[in-house]
Amino acid sequence: MATPYPGKSPFSMLSVEECVSMVSAQVLGPLGREEVALADALGRRLAEDVTASAPIPAFPASIMDGFAVRSSDPPNTYLVDADSLAGGQSAGPLRPGYVRYITTGSFVPEGADAVVKVEDTVQSARSDGQVEVQILVSSKPGANIRAVGSDTAKGEALLSAGCQLRASELGVLAALNRSRLWVHREPRVAVLSTGDELVELGGQPDEGRGQIIDCNRPLLCAMVKELGAIVSDRGQVPDELEHVRATLADALESADLVITSGGVSRGSKDYIKEVLGDLGELHFGEMCMKPGKPSTFATVKTGPDPAQKKLFFGLPGNPVSCFVTFNLLVAPAIQRLRGSPGSPVYPRVDVELASPVQMDPVRPEYHRARARWQSGRIVAESTGFQRSSRIASIAETNCLLEIPKAHGTLTKGTVVKALLLTGLLPEPEGFPSIAARSVQAPLAPQAPSASGDAAPRRAKVALLRWDSAGGEVTREQLATFLGPVELIEKQAPEVLEMRELLESWSQESSGMDLILVLGNFGLGAKDENILALLRSLVREAPNVADLLLRQGLEQSPLAMLQCVVAGYRNSTLLVTISSLTSSSLGDLCKLIRADRP
Amino acid sequence: MATPYPGKSPFSMLSVEECVSMVSAQVLGPLGREEVALADALGRRLAEDVTASAPIPAFPASIMDGFAVRSSDPPNTYLVDADSLAGGQSAGPLRPGYVRYITTGSFVPEGADAVVKVEDTVQSARSDGQVEVQILVSSKPGANIRAVGSDTAKGEALLSAGCQLRASELGVLAALNRSRLWVHREPRVAVLSTGDELVELGGQPDEGRGQIIDCNRPLLCAMVKELGAIVSDRGQVPDELEHVRATLADALESADLVITSGGVSRGSKDYIKEVLGDLGELHFGEMCMKPGKPSTFATVKTGPDPAQKKLFFGLPGNPVSCFVTFNLLVAPAIQRLRGSPGSPVYPRVDVELASPVQMDPVRPEYHRARARWQSGRIVAESTGFQRSSRIASIAETNCLLEIPKAHGTLTKGTVVKALLLTGLLPEPEGFPSIAARSVQAPLAPQAPSASGDAAPRRAKVALLRWDSAGGEVTREQLATFLGPVELIEKQAPEVLEMRELLESWSQESSGMDLILVLGNFGLGAKDENILALLRSLVREAPNVADLLLRQGLEQSPLAMLQCVVAGYRNSTLLVTISSLTSSSLGDLCKLIRADRP
Repeated sequence: MATPYPGKSPFSMLSVEECVSMVSAQVLGPLGREEVALADALGRRLAEDVTASAPIPAFPASIMDGFAVRSSDPPNTYLVDADSLAGGQSAGPLRPGYVRYITTGSFVPEGADAVVKVEDTVQSARSDGQVEVQILVSSKPGANIRAVGSDTAKGEALLSAGCQLRASELGVLAALNRSRLWVHREPRVAVLSTGDELVELGGQPDEGRGQIIDCNRPLLCAMVKELGAIVSDRGQVPDELEHVRATLADALESADLVITSGGVSRGSKDYIKEVLGDLGELHFGEMCMKPGKPSTFATVKTGPDPAQKKLFFGLPGNPVSCFVTFNLLVAPAIQRLRGSPGSPVYPRVDVELASPVQMDPVRPEYHRARARWQSGRIVAESTGFQRSSRIASIAETNCLLEIPKAHGTLTKGTVVKALLLTGLLPEPEGFPSIAARSVQAPLAPQAPSASGDAAPRRAKVALLRWDSAGGEVTREQLATFLGPVELIEKQAPEVLEMRELLESWSQESSGMDLILVLGNFGLGAKDENILALLRSLVREAPNVADLLLRQGLEQSPLAMLQCVVAGYRNSTLLVTISSLTSSSLGDLCKLIRADRP
Repeated sequence: MATPYPGKSPFSMLSVEECVSMVSAQVLGPLGREEVALADALGRRLAEDVTASAPIPAFPASIMDGFAVRSSDPPNTYLVDADSLAGGQSAGPLRPGYVRYITTGSFVPEGADAVVKVEDTVQSARSDGQVEVQILVSSKPGANIRAVGSDTAKGEALLSAGCQLRASELGVLAALNRSRLWVHREPRVAVLSTGDELVELGGQPDEGRGQIIDCNRPLLCAMVKELGAIVSDRGQVPDELEHVRATLADALESADLVITSGGVSRGSKDYIKEVLGDLGELHFGEMCMKPGKPSTFATVKTGPDPAQKKLFFGLPGNPVSCFVTFNLLVAPAIQRLRGSPGSPVYPRVDVELASPVQMDPVRPEYHRARARWQSGRIVAESTGFQRSSRIASIAETNCLLEIPKAHGTLTKGTVVKALLLTGLLPEPEGFPSIAARSVQAPLAPQAPSASGDAAPRRAKVALLRWDSAGGEVTREQLATFLGPVELIEKQAPEVLEMRELLESWSQESSGMDLILVLGNFGLGAKDENILALLRSLVREAPNVADLLLRQGLEQSPLAMLQCVVAGYRNSTLLVTISSLTSSSLGDLCKLIRADRP
């Protein structure tokens, strides 16, 4: 006699990679294609290879506002025979002994083979009203002219089938005068919820009966829309076997892909797996990961295209599991159906944990987090408590950390892999910022100001020595690059003392431009403490550190054993120095000069 | 007497940072707000702070399918008093001496204080038809129960005003039963083109008159749409002063922000700057950068809100300049108007150049490129020839490289800053992939298979020695980790010889699991050649290299001077080894064991 309460799952638990591969094997390729107007193609996937049917430019065009000339005519004074304005009627070939005014993009007239920009000419009006133009420079043939096809040759391949049409690609297609395009048909995706406890958004849940708001359907519908597919919200299915069977069969008939949430666990009313086994082929029913173990995937033969079976994803009922498993399993399938090439969907990047993360000893976990660019690396902040029912853990998530199954805790700073679902977050000191200006400076040194408007104030530099091993920097060396400087020198053999000095020197009011911390920063235990202190004090400028390290390496490969910290605290540049090359010192000085008022 | 052809620009050339700051200073904040249905809020910016008005869960809910019990009752056999199904009618308090069947998410009945999952029970049917459940484990109070508010407490702050509403945030809001939301009004953006040479998309340009297709308008309209704003395509304005004046005044009346392209250079028909000077306040007219020098920004007082002036961007006529300056100047302004907080718009990341880039000695350049994640770093591939008329240079661009102004060329591998306009591209070996599995393996070692189903095949390992300095690896050591192994050993002192051996060993048919290249890989010139060869052969696994390097460092700080290459060629793991610690060898062996059939 059978017992009424279902027990252990009969499905074998597959790895995420196996499940992803099984889905991938069932998606045979993009759906059919359709022709749309360019303005309607934003976000779609191109279903044709696009080449240039005509050269760009199609005629020799001026790059400048100026005068079309014969390059064989020497610099001299000429009369203007006509104006060649963009889009204007042609005045015919350039008359010998004349020049012609021409605007950017205009047709360069026959006879002319160069354009002289207006800044290289002097104009004067003659008494008879005619304009004389003095051409100050000689030109080479072709100067300031875009030759036919020099931007894009006729027949050049520009975009390939499968390319996502963002604004920039539409711009390219418009330049090719493509007013209509072939794109892939968008998949039709049906979304259903199962569960008698669900109440429609906006309704009044009866908590005594364990009712809750159905948030999975709005979530899944929005995820489908974000991918560009056409969503059909099919509402809720009651937990009743024949009802589930009829509703799923109906959804599969009209959609390319069906997503349900709930009904895939081992509860007595979980019918999804049973029905799918009857309707089609069930590929997997358990996935070894958190959150989303009971994820289910099936295919069903129906509809006009026998090659491409309908895809069915039975996602778990917990909203967070829905979010994660949609990203892992469903999104790649939808992307492929809508025309994306078979390549990976997400960048899988290295991120540094901003806080410790506990591992699960049984299943790998896809930990929700926010990844931001920070001082040269990607740092991920967990969204907190990761229980699969806690929907707050998906708020403002942009990545899934791949936390391996193991005992113990990954410490802050551990580097793990993360699937980047959307773009990185910028660091607070991103563009536009002062930091941006400072870091560019060493590559683009500025000339010393030639104007004598106001006496520039003296640069202020501090030397902080913490052991006797560091190199020497003299006032004379600094003066070479900065002119007269105000120089302070101190010893600080202890970390606390050092912190105090650095904090006081780097206050805005102190006006300190540069602090050089002299010492041998290698692999010693004490060095670590100093380096950690410095890193905690500054907003790091990794490019500066990199530059100094490279300059050091030119002197000796042993420089590789040195750690360099460089960064800003308020307006003060703070740099550790073991042995400073003259060119390094010069670059640092350029950097502080660029920042001075 | 005035000369008819305009000369040098009267505007002072400002830096990009100055221009960006000037725009930012004129955007006072988000536009007003409006209430929309949750389903219509995708992509919008939230205009309210959202807290939880009720706790989640609102009732004590089961985490498992199983049996609600009293934790004080010892493991024993019990009768089931009722079923507690999600959404079902409550059967009242749990009867003393009974257990109750309960499904995931259901209300835990009064009297019960723990849930035992179904796998920890044994059910049997009695002759009278009642079901007996043997509870195998004892429970602590609260076990497998989500307490009221344990996911989200009442009053907890979940989303802040300014937050971008992606699918996940809509899911969170739905869980809070928020069917309607306050979001910021989207800016209305008018887009116009100037230039008598322009022909509408789909038309027939007369090349003899220098006519071209107007691709800027479709480009700009699509860029505005991508940001979520409401675009109004206002067509072309003829190059006629009074016409330009009337059209701009009209556009400014009905839009929050106006964008034109063309008409801002020094051509005789360039009227935009002149008209803007009359209509409002012109903030800048030249920006020191490439491409997009004549970019113009003005504000005009009009419309009902006197605080927020209308914004006017006169972008250059070259399509590439439009694209770049829109991203730098216009996009941040639109984002701010639609409710984004004042933080930076783009992550400003470090990218490595995949090919040399020539610098411009006069102006910094925003070089279009494609940034992808590759072996632990971001690598950017230029889109080629960067002339501002070459629209092909924006095809599939996802970043702008900040190339400083300087003489010379930045070599391949140079690290520069890049503004990441959209997400990173994944590396080809991203998710899903075999590589993913391999890299996880060392962190989550698999137990040796206990089943005797089929005799596992022997592991195949090759040792390739290229100088006498490398360490020793013996068959016995390998056997400790792998059981009996098939071992090949060769010397290959020359690069070509080495290539041949490695290529043949790593063919799928050879079945080689692991190749250890033994030698001292430091800073010598010859080492470089070998390392370059190895890198070219494999799909690098940087985490494996990292692990080995860290294990080496535990032995000696000098390991830092060693270069480690690790990666896959087909199914063969290939690793360079100077001195191999036993734990390193163990980890490598786990790695290959995880991969074996």
